[in-house]
Amino acid sequence: MRPSGRQTNEMRPIQIETGVTRHAEGSCLIKCGDTHVLCTASIDERVPPFLKNSGLGWVTAEYGMLPRATHSRMNREAKRGQSGRTQEIQRLIGRALRAGVDRVALGERQIVVDCDVIQADGGTRCASITGGWVALRLAVNKLMKAGDVLSDPITDHVAAVSCGIYAGQPVVDLDYPEDSEAGTDANFVMTGRGRMIEVQASAEGATFGRDELTTLIDLAEGGVAELVAAQKAALEG
Amino acid sequence: MRPSGRQTNEMRPIQIETGVTRHAEGSCLIKCGDTHVLCTASIDERVPPFLKNSGLGWVTAEYGMLPRATHSRMNREAKRGQSGRTQEIQRLIGRALRAGVDRVALGERQIVVDCDVIQADGGTRCASITGGWVALRLAVNKLMKAGDVLSDPITDHVAAVSCGIYAGQPVVDLDYPEDSEAGTDANFVMTGRGRMIEVQASAEGATFGRDELTTLIDLAEGGVAELVAAQKAALEG
Amino acid sequence: MRPSGRQTNEMRPIQIETGVTRHAEGSCLIKCGDTHVLCTASIDERVPPFLKNSGLGWVTAEYGMLPRATHSRMNREAKRGQSGRTQEIQRLIGRALRAGVDRVALGERQIVVDCDVIQADGGTRCASITGGWVALRLAVNKLMKAGDVLSDPITDHVAAVSCGIYAGQPVVDLDYPEDSEAGTDANFVMTGRGRMIEVQASAEGATFGRDELTTLIDLAEGGVAELVAAQKAALEG
Amino acid sequence: MRPSGRQTNEMRPIQIETGVTRHAEGSCLIKCGDTHVLCTASIDERVPPFLKNSGLGWVTAEYGMLPRATHSRMNREAKRGQSGRTQEIQRLIGRALRAGVDRVALGERQIVVDCDVIQADGGTRCASITGGWVALRLAVNKLMKAGDVLSDPITDHVAAVSCGIYAGQPVVDLDYPEDSEAGTDANFVMTGRGRMIEVQASAEGATFGRDELTTLIDLAEGGVAELVAAQKAALEG
Amino acid sequence: MRPSGRQTNEMRPIQIETGVTRHAEGSCLIKCGDTHVLCTASIDERVPPFLKNSGLGWVTAEYGMLPRATHSRMNREAKRGQSGRTQEIQRLIGRALRAGVDRVALGERQIVVDCDVIQADGGTRCASITGGWVALRLAVNKLMKAGDVLSDPITDHVAAVSCGIYAGQPVVDLDYPEDSEAGTDANFVMTGRGRMIEVQASAEGATFGRDELTTLIDLAEGGVAELVAAQKAALEG
Amino acid sequence: MRPSGRQTNEMRPIQIETGVTRHAEGSCLIKCGDTHVLCTASIDERVPPFLKNSGLGWVTAEYGMLPRATHSRMNREAKRGQSGRTQEIQRLIGRALRAGVDRVALGERQIVVDCDVIQADGGTRCASITGGWVALRLAVNKLMKAGDVLSDPITDHVAAVSCGIYAGQPVVDLDYPEDSEAGTDANFVMTGRGRMIEVQASAEGATFGRDELTTLIDLAEGGVAELVAAQKAALEG
Repeated sequence: MRPSGRQTNEMRPIQIETGVTRHAEGSCLIKCGDTHVLCTASIDERVPPFLKNSGLGWVTAEYGMLPRATHSRMNREAKRGQSGRTQEIQRLIGRALRAGVDRVALGERQIVVDCDVIQADGGTRCASITGGWVALRLAVNKLMKAGDVLSDPITDHVAAVSCGIYAGQPVVDLDYPEDSEAGTDANFVMTGRGRMIEVQASAEGATFGRDELTTLIDLAEGGVAELVAAQKAALEG
Repeated sequence: MRPSGRQTNEMRPIQIETGVTRHAEGSCLIKCGDTHVLCTASIDERVPPFLKNSGLGWVTAEYGMLPRATHSRMNREAKRGQSGRTQEIQRLIGRALRAGVDRVALGERQIVVDCDVIQADGGTRCASITGGWVALRLAVNKLMKAGDVLSDPITDHVAAVSCGIYAGQPVVDLDYPEDSEAGTDANFVMTGRGRMIEVQASAEGATFGRDELTTLIDLAEGGVAELVAAQKAALEG
Repeated sequence: MRPSGRQTNEMRPIQIETGVTRHAEGSCLIKCGDTHVLCTASIDERVPPFLKNSGLGWVTAEYGMLPRATHSRMNREAKRGQSGRTQEIQRLIGRALRAGVDRVALGERQIVVDCDVIQADGGTRCASITGGWVALRLAVNKLMKAGDVLSDPITDHVAAVSCGIYAGQPVVDLDYPEDSEAGTDANFVMTGRGRMIEVQASAEGATFGRDELTTLIDLAEGGVAELVAAQKAALEG
Repeated sequence: MRPSGRQTNEMRPIQIETGVTRHAEGSCLIKCGDTHVLCTASIDERVPPFLKNSGLGWVTAEYGMLPRATHSRMNREAKRGQSGRTQEIQRLIGRALRAGVDRVALGERQIVVDCDVIQADGGTRCASITGGWVALRLAVNKLMKAGDVLSDPITDHVAAVSCGIYAGQPVVDLDYPEDSEAGTDANFVMTGRGRMIEVQASAEGATFGRDELTTLIDLAEGGVAELVAAQKAALEG
Repeated sequence: MRPSGRQTNEMRPIQIETGVTRHAEGSCLIKCGDTHVLCTASIDERVPPFLKNSGLGWVTAEYGMLPRATHSRMNREAKRGQSGRTQEIQRLIGRALRAGVDRVALGERQIVVDCDVIQADGGTRCASITGGWVALRLAVNKLMKAGDVLSDPITDHVAAVSCGIYAGQPVVDLDYPEDSEAGTDANFVMTGRGRMIEVQASAEGATFGRDELTTLIDLAEGGVAELVAAQKAALEG
Repeated sequence: MRPSGRQTNEMRPIQIETGVTRHAEGSCLIKCGDTHVLCTASIDERVPPFLKNSGLGWVTAEYGMLPRATHSRMNREAKRGQSGRTQEIQRLIGRALRAGVDRVALGERQIVVDCDVIQADGGTRCASITGGWVALRLAVNKLMKAGDVLSDPITDHVAAVSCGIYAGQPVVDLDYPEDSEAGTDANFVMTGRGRMIEVQASAEGATFGRDELTTLIDLAEGGVAELVAAQKAALEG
């Protein structure tokens, strides 16, 4: 029934390869099926102006897509400027990652997480959050190893999954063919303990009822649990 | 407990005055407490390029804030360009309004809904949706009266309310003092029949659990019902 | 002879309502016939860089039009940037208001006057100056009441009126139907004592002679006197 | 009394050299004292979109200053965008030149007049109008010689001069030292027959009275007459 | 003597992996030591406006760097716009690739080659040209296989290498530590047959003589030969 | 054989007039045939941020073309922003001039060289370098005369010439008709002693061989010698 033949609660294969670039303090390449995102975390000892002398740290994110990450080539944002969609996504990633960070413990420094989509097949913002957290975790590990940060500022895993109502059926982890046809499209960002950070559910065609929202949350909880397990495996591996 | 002394499920006073500008095909000034938004709907017989010769109509929205709508003056977006926040809000308003429109019945034309915040005290995006729908309804009425549209393309009311967890307590219709302190901030867009169009819940400080989300939805359903009643009253009055 | 049936020297009805927004230090809604402009004055204790440590104050203005203030919807300047016309108008408003201010007495602070056209029917720049002065006056009153400014920096009323040659006949206070047909279009900014601050007369079709300019100045003097009376009434009321 | 030792009604030496660039259909280098402006007129057989199939021609102007035309170097507008002042000036030049053109006789084509200030010493906008008219005249001559235009679309000379109140004294043709100190600054655009196209008088410090405006107009009439004579001499020479 | 211990005429290890992205008509990941560039070629059946109905094809290139491709994070060009350096590089890549294409044989279509630097260690523009040619070759192969292009429009291999004078010694294929210290920096683009497409040699500190230029060309010829061999191997592999 | 009838090694007439603008610390108008460039050098006692407190000076260049410097009018860069070509050229001019300057001897100050093309007929970037050096020389002379710089920071003359393969024949100093048809286009920047600063050779149609490059260098050496002689004559004259 799903174009990929998956079960309604079946995630795409998840691969997270860490340490993929030489310069970044933390990095990974996350593959959720055919969606591939390169995530790097860069430590900057300067905070944004509004935090100067506050003693608080900051985590922010930027998101981009290579022009031919998609089925047909998109115009390069460096030429036309960031779209509203791009800005919305990177604001979401930043908010999501900050929700898992103790900014006092991080100290007055900034970590910038860059999420660049190498290949897109649906769910790029969710993969960016899940992979971005791994890059962030690695950069923080480096800070702790160097003694620059004493108590761990990471309070919990953060991961995200999309769910939607495809052909009338709630399903988890939509790929592009599903995403472009789904009646309702939802993104869930949760912690490793299953607490919610962000819920975004949007009717694309038909509206949805409370019961459907409940089913989508159930699916998301299962999906996020798998993503968190993949994060742990990648960090241990 | 709430700075305004309201009950947790108590909305601010709602006023919707229609026909407030001379030129627009539909208009209203919506006041949700001290949040005042001027909404106009403009009919444009040309659709965006991607809909040319599709037979489908389009509804889109733009959002702005006068520089001194807020407590301290903000820079004018005409000078510095639209912020990511502004673009995110106007994309939401557009999606919300389109969810209540039959684009075949509307025919190949566009309606642009402008929501300009005259005075802000929290909940400006929700007031924009609720008031924007009234302006849209009035513009469509004009099209129908003129015989340009034969069957009503408006499928249901659309209204929105914010909810949040303030001082540990779920409350409805946050004003600015609550909004700036809330641990979780959520916006619900619903139809007159209580179906959901958009759910956005975001942890600003503490994460939230499923039970809390459930309470927020309960509060939102009550709030939207009041807003829909106010829309009806304004259109009949 | 005039589309509105007015006499050549007859102004449109003037209404100035003060205190219309909650946040601004000074505000009014000015209505010159169907031209409605919301004016706010915002006090900023920081001056522009070129005045730092000069002991001199600054008054500046910004001007905008809501997209559907006009007969057909205009593109939003926040999306396309400020037009040359907008910049020209706001430079004029700023110059005009500064001409009535003793910048030494104001002290090293800035007042920003925002003029946003809610509904347009000709003469928006003149209404902005006349209403902007009222907002400025109110903001300065607040500074004086608080003891932040000791001697009144406002040296005189400032008001503005448009005149033009419509159908060969000099007339005062053009509305949009006249403005779009006028052969010569002029704006006069004057003080309460009848001194001139700015004269801008421009041949749109036919050129004009000295005698015609003389008649336009006569009309303007009468018009500005009425506007100054309305400013006084609004401030006393 | 004037820094240059000129009489109050004494213009700076005027030189207009025509045919100074190889490519433009019309060109001149105008020198009003130490203010030097290169003016070119370019014929474009395409009109702006709003005139397509109207049968009407268009004349427009663009204005620029080389970065070191001024006493201290200014930032290059190609890098930072055109300032409000630049846009205001080029709108004025365009309006001024159009006032001397019969757009039906010109036919559906556009002439773009570029005015680039090589060296600035006050009065650059007036020199641009006076020199721009010569470039325009030459380009139109070329169209007429080629038989592309049958009856002369130029209805009269157009020239401009600045006047102002310097050290309490009305004077004509201000240079930079005067301009930067003048209490009132005015620009007059007139035709060869002495009809007025544009009057812009602005109080920079002190306001001005009707009698002073009258004196400024007298001075301007004398100045424009000299400029028109110089235009004629340059075209005949 | 070289930081990497390489001989003066020794290239870094070259790896070219083809078919690395799912959507692009041609793609490769080229690794020249620690410089990694993802190259994709996208076929667009529409040509730029200046080639419409000319019967001629077009090849163009765009270049970008992920923000953390470099040792310290750079600002994202999507936020600040493309720098002059980026534009200069992508113009070079486009010119270089077009020099190896018969635009008549290609037919009226465009191929856009995107070169995105994943990791930078000097020589990114040369790696982009060498890898970009492979992506272009693959995309053209696809056109030929489909019968859309009948005779091969690719006239020869195109590859590029940097050379420079490091510590007084001419060397080939500079890595970042050499590049940042080199007295002279040169880029050579050549064909498979050893003909020159582009020579760019620039004194960064000391000027250079003809003899040194001769040595740099010798080194470049050897380096390009290796790169062409690697291109062939990758296409056959 | 050449459209101008010149010999293959024959330069266009060179004229360099110094002191052409009143305000700049150094200036000249250079004419290479019909290519006319106004060059000014402006001393700025502030250096760019990256050189603050370094004790090192900086020389930078900006390049522009008047809209009607060319055969058909180009859009004004102040309106559309600087093109990639413009940025590439001004980066080249800056690099070239810096190669002839001892930045320690210059001291911590900046000289900005503006090169504005008044009339274009090919070779504008080379004329800008040759003329820009004269303006720079004059500005430095002024600094030395004033005692602000003690030992001469100018280490040698810098001049540039274009060469190319036109109709199969290597020629020097291409004018526009040659430039637009040339198979290979090259620019050589050299010092007064004949050392090379920058070599840029680019195949526009046919590729070129080493022997052809050798001939182009021979031609360039002769051309630069003539340009250096003209610089000397202008400075002495």
